[in-house]
Amino acid sequence: MYDSKPSTHWIIEWQSPYSASMFGIKRILFSGRTKYQEVIVAELREYGISLILDGKIQSSERDEFIYHEMLVHPALVTHPNPERVLLIGGGEGATLREILKHNTVKEVVMVDIDEEVVDICKKYLESFHRGSFNDPRAKLIIGDGREFLKREEGGWDVIVLDVTDPIEEGPSKLLYTKEFYEIANSKLKEDGILVTQSTSLTQNMDTFATIFRTLGKVFPIVRATSAFVPAYTADWSFTIASKEHDPQVVRSEEAERRVNERGIGDLKYYDPSFHPYYFHLPKFVREYINKSDKIALDKAPAFIY
Amino acid sequence: MYDSKPSTHWIIEWQSPYSASMFGIKRILFSGRTKYQEVIVAELREYGISLILDGKIQSSERDEFIYHEMLVHPALVTHPNPERVLLIGGGEGATLREILKHNTVKEVVMVDIDEEVVDICKKYLESFHRGSFNDPRAKLIIGDGREFLKREEGGWDVIVLDVTDPIEEGPSKLLYTKEFYEIANSKLKEDGILVTQSTSLTQNMDTFATIFRTLGKVFPIVRATSAFVPAYTADWSFTIASKEHDPQVVRSEEAERRVNERGIGDLKYYDPSFHPYYFHLPKFVREYINKSDKIALDKAPAFIY
Amino acid sequence: MYDSKPSTHWIIEWQSPYSASMFGIKRILFSGRTKYQEVIVAELREYGISLILDGKIQSSERDEFIYHEMLVHPALVTHPNPERVLLIGGGEGATLREILKHNTVKEVVMVDIDEEVVDICKKYLESFHRGSFNDPRAKLIIGDGREFLKREEGGWDVIVLDVTDPIEEGPSKLLYTKEFYEIANSKLKEDGILVTQSTSLTQNMDTFATIFRTLGKVFPIVRATSAFVPAYTADWSFTIASKEHDPQVVRSEEAERRVNERGIGDLKYYDPSFHPYYFHLPKFVREYINKSDKIALDKAPAFIY
Amino acid sequence: MYDSKPSTHWIIEWQSPYSASMFGIKRILFSGRTKYQEVIVAELREYGISLILDGKIQSSERDEFIYHEMLVHPALVTHPNPERVLLIGGGEGATLREILKHNTVKEVVMVDIDEEVVDICKKYLESFHRGSFNDPRAKLIIGDGREFLKREEGGWDVIVLDVTDPIEEGPSKLLYTKEFYEIANSKLKEDGILVTQSTSLTQNMDTFATIFRTLGKVFPIVRATSAFVPAYTADWSFTIASKEHDPQVVRSEEAERRVNERGIGDLKYYDPSFHPYYFHLPKFVREYINKSDKIALDKAPAFIY
Repeated sequence: MYDSKPSTHWIIEWQSPYSASMFGIKRILFSGRTKYQEVIVAELREYGISLILDGKIQSSERDEFIYHEMLVHPALVTHPNPERVLLIGGGEGATLREILKHNTVKEVVMVDIDEEVVDICKKYLESFHRGSFNDPRAKLIIGDGREFLKREEGGWDVIVLDVTDPIEEGPSKLLYTKEFYEIANSKLKEDGILVTQSTSLTQNMDTFATIFRTLGKVFPIVRATSAFVPAYTADWSFTIASKEHDPQVVRSEEAERRVNERGIGDLKYYDPSFHPYYFHLPKFVREYINKSDKIALDKAPAFIY
Repeated sequence: MYDSKPSTHWIIEWQSPYSASMFGIKRILFSGRTKYQEVIVAELREYGISLILDGKIQSSERDEFIYHEMLVHPALVTHPNPERVLLIGGGEGATLREILKHNTVKEVVMVDIDEEVVDICKKYLESFHRGSFNDPRAKLIIGDGREFLKREEGGWDVIVLDVTDPIEEGPSKLLYTKEFYEIANSKLKEDGILVTQSTSLTQNMDTFATIFRTLGKVFPIVRATSAFVPAYTADWSFTIASKEHDPQVVRSEEAERRVNERGIGDLKYYDPSFHPYYFHLPKFVREYINKSDKIALDKAPAFIY
Repeated sequence: MYDSKPSTHWIIEWQSPYSASMFGIKRILFSGRTKYQEVIVAELREYGISLILDGKIQSSERDEFIYHEMLVHPALVTHPNPERVLLIGGGEGATLREILKHNTVKEVVMVDIDEEVVDICKKYLESFHRGSFNDPRAKLIIGDGREFLKREEGGWDVIVLDVTDPIEEGPSKLLYTKEFYEIANSKLKEDGILVTQSTSLTQNMDTFATIFRTLGKVFPIVRATSAFVPAYTADWSFTIASKEHDPQVVRSEEAERRVNERGIGDLKYYDPSFHPYYFHLPKFVREYINKSDKIALDKAPAFIY
Repeated sequence: MYDSKPSTHWIIEWQSPYSASMFGIKRILFSGRTKYQEVIVAELREYGISLILDGKIQSSERDEFIYHEMLVHPALVTHPNPERVLLIGGGEGATLREILKHNTVKEVVMVDIDEEVVDICKKYLESFHRGSFNDPRAKLIIGDGREFLKREEGGWDVIVLDVTDPIEEGPSKLLYTKEFYEIANSKLKEDGILVTQSTSLTQNMDTFATIFRTLGKVFPIVRATSAFVPAYTADWSFTIASKEHDPQVVRSEEAERRVNERGIGDLKYYDPSFHPYYFHLPKFVREYINKSDKIALDKAPAFIY
């Protein structure tokens, strides 16, 4: 005997015409279209307040800490002294929140293309940004991240790419190409690090592998990690491209020391004692990366459905 | 080649654990819970602004005229001079709107249990009620329709039951029982008419037949009609129970005369020239009604999922 | 409290990217692809054995009688003496079954393009065809209906078009065009009648209206009726095009007489006493038909999703 | 522009009334009910041939190697010399296949309750079992695993529990309780190891934690690992309970040596060089395990939906 009929109100996230995940909705806080994308802020029955852009769940109250910790800390802990950080995307303010936990950071510039999304997040996702937008070290610029990067002076320690997936009709597909990574590379300091969300490791293995290989054409060191994010129903990947510092050679003790010295106290997923082991990929994924030499170019970007 | 991925945001209306209809949502205007039920006001991609109560679509901008015309006009046209009308339910105000089109009507009392739903409808469903709540002939009472009817003086020409389906967890199941129909009968004038929405003719054939037979235990004349309502994905039924006037013997010409004399100009579904033919039921439905003698009692109401 | 979780195994019939119907499956009898289309024979939880072609339910054990009676009898009863009948499509054998009920019929030629589908139906849908394929008056030809009609000698009393909906990727779209109807017209006797299934009256109103108007360019008399078919979750339409006999002027008594004289005993939906009233369309549908002058041509057929 | 409409034919796996995963079906090889459970063998569009029991995907051609390698090898590699292995469940034959890869193994007894499922797997899942059932070291017994274990003599090196999830209406719920683990413990040698699939680490965190704690009441050493299995849309967990050998203290080099010496050549997921690191759990999971002291008893088993 069951207490409940199935839900009436749903988000269905399509991974393809043959695959989807269904999420029951408790209530909708916002639904509409900005200049760039479809936006829904929903309280999901099993995930709490969640942001959905162009049909893809971006983050949920229940598990956003997994995504945001694993996007930020493996990269920033790999850098011995991250002071100037550029964040492209990140409308929820939660990536900003994690970056600001590192007290070495003196300046974070966040460039997001969609002012309406940022305003919606400020209004509805207080538990995500937790006032980060008001930190004096943070500066928000509304604009196209690639255009911004092309024109500005550079000198970044870390560039964090917290942008939507490369879907054909969305605004982010040119933030995953070789040309873009070359621009980013030229704006990083000589020991700079770039980190990007890079789709699901195994559900979008072809796209992940293309991003990984494309970064490998531009940067000498490329490492990836993944974490299961329940609201994505997938093992999400994060790829670090680095000029000098190899994430895998930062030992457990060193990672713990950096986390402690930088005053980072409240971690729920990332564990510095496991730092060098996060970059182990399953055998079949390593083999897949090596099987092809496809890379993403402006004229032929990588896509997911 | 197709222009569009399937929608992300859906209403799924469950008819059973094995049967459901899916409706893509453009945006949500309201979602929440009142004291009595779950309420969603959504703009559906293919149906426009729609009201959903406890997981069942009540009416949609695109086709509410079908339901509301067929609930009201076959019954009111059957009555030679409807002056005093009692409406139970009808939160959207659209049933009220159709009743008020009959200029014979001097007074409509509408009793709805859920003040919050009525307020939501007043706010979001302007194109449904079109100011009917402000008509000087209309009076709105918030309360339990059955309790109201029990206590008041009666003398109604027509009672219209525009209430939600008899689902186990909803507020309407005791508005479809023999005991309730006896109360209603006692409050009608000697030539009074009752009309009730009565679920889908063929999708809920057992429930429909039970309502039909139950009315037959209380009233001498019972007739039903049905109309396909796209947003219900079903042939919706409306059952008329009458003390004296038989809907089927009002001839086309007489129905047309009444519609004209009463100043009813803007009909989109109900056609008075077809009036007597609306009460024809398919053979298998007629046979089904006769196959059983189940009736709905307070202690054993009829249900749908 | 509910007895059951929602079903695991489903047919989802998509009417558009924003609209679908879900049917729980008990078991699959056949699933595969023929030369022409995707074929599933499923036992649906609420509809029994059902045939699904290219994602559209064609008929179900529970309610196939509605579709097949209403496709055949309004047309054949309208004809005073149908002897030679051409059936295009109709793989299940149920349309053939209904046609053969008229003892005036001396010959039915059935032309279906998809031999595999016919064989699957013969094997799994015994309760649909009930041996009709073995009737000495019936002759089955495998081939393209339009090509067959073009080449053969004509002289048909009635042509029945029981073909799949005009979907872009399916085999039937050129069986709904003006050019095709002109061929059919030329092969009918001078008082011949054509009847075609014509999609949902209101769910596919634009396609229905186009078919209706296109027939009106070729035939002097065009009438349509509709019946709610539960497994289609829609009011299905059937359009009759006639050279001389008007369905609407066959009076109830005459229709009853013909049914009796032709020895048709076991009807569950079609009621000859209601014959002339079946051709009444709702007001908004009549208005919609007149609103446009779009017709279907070979180079620009009418489509549904 | 998209090449394809969404699929017509689906498996929907319900994790709760508010959460589900949808899998498009290419064709069905088998669907029916055995004495114990609902069985579907489907070719899924994105996962290939797959076995679904009581609405839960058990394994798919595309990714069964992940589940079966991670169920078997971390446990068997932890044991220095596994000779006698008992497998409860494992109808597909793929767990058997992985166990038999260890050439130390002299005998595997597989006890599965559902003979029909085993026969279906033998017939349709050749690429899963690859002839393992014919290995002279393997012995198949049809029966209740718990009853079998209670009565037999014991002396197992490793017990592998490859049984369905503990759902209320399914056959496996009493294979996750303290009483059952006590029986298993008593039948293991003094350095024996038990491994069980233990639901999703984070999607069923409460059930996982209960299984983990329950094993901790019976065994001195309990470790868990997880791996993302695409067809489960979840990070699946595998829990090892051990009397003496701690999985986490088998060093990389030792694990590699054992894999090589035992002649295990064709691994696609499990990497012995990573062996000791597989048992790291995310911080929030470790904290969750410690937050409660709920354990599973025969009279109050752990459940998932």
